[in-house]
Amino acid sequence: MQVDGRHYRTIWPTADGRAVEVIDQRRLPHAFEILRLEDLESAARAIETMVVRGAPLIGATAAYGLALAMHVDASDHGIASAYDRLFRTRPTAVNLRWALDDLRQRLLPLVPGERAAAAWRRAAEICDEDVEVCRRIGEAGLELFRKAYAEKGEKKPLRVLTHCNAGWLATVDWGTALAPIYMAHNDGMPVEVWVDETRPRNQGAALTAWELGRHGVRHRLIVDNVGGHLMQHGLVDLCIVGTDRTTARGDVCNKIGTYLKALAAKANNIPFYVALPYTTIDWSVENGADIPIEERDGREVTHIWGKDEEGVLREVQIAPDETPAANYAFDVTPAELVSALITDRGVCEASREGLEELFPERQAGVGPA
Amino acid sequence: MQVDGRHYRTIWPTADGRAVEVIDQRRLPHAFEILRLEDLESAARAIETMVVRGAPLIGATAAYGLALAMHVDASDHGIASAYDRLFRTRPTAVNLRWALDDLRQRLLPLVPGERAAAAWRRAAEICDEDVEVCRRIGEAGLELFRKAYAEKGEKKPLRVLTHCNAGWLATVDWGTALAPIYMAHNDGMPVEVWVDETRPRNQGAALTAWELGRHGVRHRLIVDNVGGHLMQHGLVDLCIVGTDRTTARGDVCNKIGTYLKALAAKANNIPFYVALPYTTIDWSVENGADIPIEERDGREVTHIWGKDEEGVLREVQIAPDETPAANYAFDVTPAELVSALITDRGVCEASREGLEELFPERQAGVGPA
Repeated sequence: MQVDGRHYRTIWPTADGRAVEVIDQRRLPHAFEILRLEDLESAARAIETMVVRGAPLIGATAAYGLALAMHVDASDHGIASAYDRLFRTRPTAVNLRWALDDLRQRLLPLVPGERAAAAWRRAAEICDEDVEVCRRIGEAGLELFRKAYAEKGEKKPLRVLTHCNAGWLATVDWGTALAPIYMAHNDGMPVEVWVDETRPRNQGAALTAWELGRHGVRHRLIVDNVGGHLMQHGLVDLCIVGTDRTTARGDVCNKIGTYLKALAAKANNIPFYVALPYTTIDWSVENGADIPIEERDGREVTHIWGKDEEGVLREVQIAPDETPAANYAFDVTPAELVSALITDRGVCEASREGLEELFPERQAGVGPA
Repeated sequence: MQVDGRHYRTIWPTADGRAVEVIDQRRLPHAFEILRLEDLESAARAIETMVVRGAPLIGATAAYGLALAMHVDASDHGIASAYDRLFRTRPTAVNLRWALDDLRQRLLPLVPGERAAAAWRRAAEICDEDVEVCRRIGEAGLELFRKAYAEKGEKKPLRVLTHCNAGWLATVDWGTALAPIYMAHNDGMPVEVWVDETRPRNQGAALTAWELGRHGVRHRLIVDNVGGHLMQHGLVDLCIVGTDRTTARGDVCNKIGTYLKALAAKANNIPFYVALPYTTIDWSVENGADIPIEERDGREVTHIWGKDEEGVLREVQIAPDETPAANYAFDVTPAELVSALITDRGVCEASREGLEELFPERQAGVGPA
């Protein structure tokens, strides 16, 4: 998408074919800096330290990490150790494993001398495929947006609420939940986005607000407490969020707080859409309540990072010294609260039937995920 | 309540009878400092600048402010101008007006020479009455807590979720929503409190966590997004919050985000209690949707205040420069989502019938509020 008039992806190979470059997302929104990843270790560390984040972008970065490793050691052992190093970075990310498995199964049949070039080509393909998947999600979502805008029957902007960051920064380009928003905006539809700040890591305030602002999409930042009030007062036309993992029956595991917004949308008859690439569907899990929820460091709750009055990036403590904090990173929104799933194969009901209609190959036990 | 083993109220007269002292709540939780208020202007500014906050404490401070003004000018004009100065500080606070009206109507019939002493006595009475009202709320709530704890049928702590700060810092002592928690704790019941941080002003992280910690009550700080997940997983036994204004039919206007927790409690069959002194009931409003909601400065959303690594209190910016933000301060929880109201006259259903049963004098058009 656009950053001050220039088009960027979140990851791209350098001209010399020896490295990839990424946007350092740890510095956003206060600085826009590009980092060069030259080897396996720098790619692995970029994932670990959240230079890059978002399930699809993690997968793409891991693919390039494995390709970079092939320049150094293209033996079977080289593949295995690069796989392990990269897999350990964020072991719960579904797309990370998917990308690594994909590359490994393509490389192992080749002779070592062909592996580096093949891995490099495949990593680039994975990126292009991700862009295409997100573009399709965007187009499927755009239809729903057009319908909602037409139904408003007034020239006021379509007001969309989103939680966390499921934008182009989380993918290679376009994003998932934000893809229909960008397409509607590019298409000339007036759209206004309510951006949940998304405590504790503030991905909404830091990343979604930045993305939308750079691309020129109207938006307003709100604290996570506000969405219910807005929905009660007719100030939200639809909600759209991403998902980290979607179960076979359509339960959605996404950033903590998603469930509360879905409850409010249901109570106020507002559509609640979830946008997802097929890679986030976990056909092995039926009930979202069975998904283990990551608990992170309580310091993310008691301390907040930002830019001080002199422009220095620093952390401040908002709670009394030694306050115990609990930090659950995700929650599960049951399928009943989801109005529809927006996938790269189109829109479906959030149910086993709905998903199997779009992904019929799963009934035969095979398929893309 | 207790601060490091010593008992405090939030406001008290000095020994010489010439001033009152208050805890400077702007500095909490990072510093515990006492401020001396010697005249009308310092009392008014303490309310305006949020040295003191919380509806009951604002009322008590205003009463002492009027009493301090009587030392300087006890004429009818002196009463009127002190009333106006204090009323302008937070014009939407229900208790502020209640306290000022109470004092004015008692002082006007007196000769000026008697007014200062009478005002001082009445301000002290208002404080004592507030303590008594909160104590009664605590006792009524304690019965519900005892029942909930007995029903658990296991020795695990009773887990209570609260939003914002409705503790002793918001009143003269005990608090409203936190009063039953303190009483249960003092009584030996194991209680564990989930403290919503309560963005944007973080009263949960800054004040509730501090209060509970100083008094020795077990608690854990959470971001506002977490409550729904906790309730889905059986980690909350009951919710209890305060209210800024309660309508005649039991709708509750409280800090933004309260509504989302009430929805989650309803969806998960968890009791959602609202604690209130009679002074917050607004018999003139039936439907909570008619209450105008204060919109505050967006800077409270884009900037967060805390203690840096060197112990300096400062603000950091969490959003891109010039991000537009919307900042609604309160929301309305409809009576249907409220399991019961806990008042200084006991517990009732959140409905006109429930409230009129406890406050029958309202049917005759008279009464305390």
